[in-house]
Amino acid sequence: MPTYHIEMMEGRTIEQKKKLVAEITRVSVEVLGGLPESVDILITDVKRENWSTGGVLWSERS
Amino acid sequence: MPTYHIEMMEGRTIEQKKKLVAEITRVSVEVLGGLPESVDILITDVKRENWSTGGVLWSERS
Amino acid sequence: MPTYHIEMMEGRTIEQKKKLVAEITRVSVEVLGGLPESVDILITDVKRENWSTGGVLWSERS
Amino acid sequence: MPTYHIEMMEGRTIEQKKKLVAEITRVSVEVLGGLPESVDILITDVKRENWSTGGVLWSERS
Amino acid sequence: MPTYHIEMMEGRTIEQKKKLVAEITRVSVEVLGGLPESVDILITDVKRENWSTGGVLWSERS
Amino acid sequence: MPTYHIEMMEGRTIEQKKKLVAEITRVSVEVLGGLPESVDILITDVKRENWSTGGVLWSERS
Repeated sequence: MPTYHIEMMEGRTIEQKKKLVAEITRVSVEVLGGLPESVDILITDVKRENWSTGGVLWSERS
Repeated sequence: MPTYHIEMMEGRTIEQKKKLVAEITRVSVEVLGGLPESVDILITDVKRENWSTGGVLWSERS
Repeated sequence: MPTYHIEMMEGRTIEQKKKLVAEITRVSVEVLGGLPESVDILITDVKRENWSTGGVLWSERS
Repeated sequence: MPTYHIEMMEGRTIEQKKKLVAEITRVSVEVLGGLPESVDILITDVKRENWSTGGVLWSERS
Repeated sequence: MPTYHIEMMEGRTIEQKKKLVAEITRVSVEVLGGLPESVDILITDVKRENWSTGGVLWSERS
Repeated sequence: MPTYHIEMMEGRTIEQKKKLVAEITRVSVEVLGGLPESVDILITDVKRENWSTGGVLWSERS
């Protein structure tokens, strides 16, 4: 039943997403218990113009 | 003032969204009180490649 | 699989929460289809000192 | 380390986003302390068909 | 209508929160337009045992 | 820079949280690249009266 939300910069491949959710689900079950089927993971691909660190959008960095 | 966020798989029609927000607003006012105008609902259409259950992305299921 | 997050001011009773989640689950299944078991709802009770509208915390309103 | 999420109707320009994140970062450091580099801000551009107030989607308003 | 969520380490005073929401509302209206009344801000006070950076909970740092 | 939010039922120990954030950070760096220091994880402990599956609060299940 644990629910994971992952916000990451856009551009990751499906292969990376597949591996990431498989590994996080495995780790979650290992540490918290429960069944894999009860682990939901939602990914948000964030555009560089929508993420700022230190007051500067990542789309503005060179 | 209650604020609802709904995450659902992409592909729902505008008609479904219209009906869903109307019904949820009605139910919210009925149970919690307050005015309909104070109920905000935000929908996120999640791509199948961005939602995993049981360690497998929904885009990978047949 | 739709997931609902509800943010509401603290102070609602368990009876209100029970009714609200039952009704939202019913409405969700009616409009979007799927099984009730696939509908998750998470409630956040927000303290009045943590919610601002118009630049003023609700704890500061008389 | 404070993390800000901003949900706003789609259609804002990059110039508005640049100014908004710069100002919020400045205000955050001024009030909470810490370094600008520790302030992250994530923006979500919400489509009018995905935001409802008072039970009506903003895409349905004239 | 823009909605802000702020996640910050627990321990901030009401005075800091009051100033922060007033300033963010002012900046939001200045940059995005709209009325102050349409700006909602929700704060989450995060416990040090619930925030990790670099794989270490902040409650474990000396 | 990826940011993880984990919602899980209340009651987990600090030891479980320590292990979980260490493992998720390791997996994240392994799959997505970047430095461990850029991985933030925020945990929300959800009360059983605030989580519903299938229209029933977990506090109401026996």
